[in-house]
Amino acid sequence: MRYFRLTLSYDGTRYAGWQVQANARTIQAEIEAALHTITGERLRAVASGRTDAGVHAFGQVVSFTSDTRLTPNVLRKALDANLPRDIVPLEVVEAPSGFHAIRDAIRKRYRYVIQDGPIQDPFTRDYAWYFPQRLDVEAMRTAAQALVGTHDYTSFEASGSERATSVRTVTELTIERHPSDFLDTIVLEIEADGFLYNMVRNIVGSLVEVGRGKQPPAWIADVLQACNRKRAGMTAPPQGLFLVRVDYGW
Amino acid sequence: MRYFRLTLSYDGTRYAGWQVQANARTIQAEIEAALHTITGERLRAVASGRTDAGVHAFGQVVSFTSDTRLTPNVLRKALDANLPRDIVPLEVVEAPSGFHAIRDAIRKRYRYVIQDGPIQDPFTRDYAWYFPQRLDVEAMRTAAQALVGTHDYTSFEASGSERATSVRTVTELTIERHPSDFLDTIVLEIEADGFLYNMVRNIVGSLVEVGRGKQPPAWIADVLQACNRKRAGMTAPPQGLFLVRVDYGW
Repeated sequence: MRYFRLTLSYDGTRYAGWQVQANARTIQAEIEAALHTITGERLRAVASGRTDAGVHAFGQVVSFTSDTRLTPNVLRKALDANLPRDIVPLEVVEAPSGFHAIRDAIRKRYRYVIQDGPIQDPFTRDYAWYFPQRLDVEAMRTAAQALVGTHDYTSFEASGSERATSVRTVTELTIERHPSDFLDTIVLEIEADGFLYNMVRNIVGSLVEVGRGKQPPAWIADVLQACNRKRAGMTAPPQGLFLVRVDYGW
Repeated sequence: MRYFRLTLSYDGTRYAGWQVQANARTIQAEIEAALHTITGERLRAVASGRTDAGVHAFGQVVSFTSDTRLTPNVLRKALDANLPRDIVPLEVVEAPSGFHAIRDAIRKRYRYVIQDGPIQDPFTRDYAWYFPQRLDVEAMRTAAQALVGTHDYTSFEASGSERATSVRTVTELTIERHPSDFLDTIVLEIEADGFLYNMVRNIVGSLVEVGRGKQPPAWIADVLQACNRKRAGMTAPPQGLFLVRVDYGW
């Protein structure tokens, strides 16, 4: 049996997220159907993390095992030929024995895009959170500093989650205003050794409270220290979220 | 009767182009329906140029006349409320008497986006021409110099067009490779005092012949001088084309 690592880019707009569900189009179902067509085997595809409906990926990583004799590059081309146009296999490599996309991930990077201002860009409807008020990026950046480092992120975890620990290490958090084609966007990038469920979207929802002037920058540190989901802001909508990259130890 | 200038951005993906057609969704039909709802009048909306099916606009300009007493800003907001999300009114201003969006245009700018290389970006499927071979941007740029200035562009005009003259003045033509989110794009921008039908798409189709190495850069000057549509390359597909801006004398 061979272990494979598949790197995928997908536009999540038309999907009910990663995970297989009855009566819904999902990325996992598309990948497993394509792998079945190619190998004849009923394989299980494991993603580094389950993206929700409408969430996108530049570089999702998927592990699977197979008895196929195809080379990784032929597998990639066969997947490309058998997947819908909005799911693109970027790379297939043979992985060390036992490779598991969730368990072995050592670092992940997400991007969140906000389009702010009085006019909604028709080109980013499915790729950004539209916020009708212009946000104070400087204030958001100041607030965000409190989130970098090793902390208990319970306040930014979806309620009802069950994890052994809510402590994670955020190694980078940048917020920049980007000139887009004709309307600005605000791009937040965050890197950590792991993320709690909805953590990025909850952080963004809270930072927007600061950006719109409802809370001072220091409020974010208070929310973090409270370790209480009820203290944070709203959960930002899914379509602004992109899984950028997942790193492994090899 | 008052004259208005409306600046529009739209994602042309779901439309059969600008012009009203039976049994097809068009931008013009949406605009005229919204204006009817708002003013009660049956108004004719005139665009600076008819965009084809799948072509996009950052700043299309539309003229119309109305007896409405609404202020331009209220009109803009009412249009925003009555148009689909992929058609966005950026600005409404009152125009000089007699204003006509086609006749009065003095300069236009288009953008054309190509995504080249072995992997197709799922996020630009509807917003770029995907070309599976990496193109030589330097060669395309060299070739494009011949197209700047005042020339007869008959070779790049859709066959069957009837215009008084095929002479236009191209004031700027730039071609740059842009790092996109994770896959490169090539962005061509072209500005002129006016464009023949399909001129940008025919120029792009010809420049790509140079970029892929099928023709030397000097071939573009030969094609231009021939004044013969049959000498040029293919017509580039519509989804990479964006009408960026239209300028008027006021």
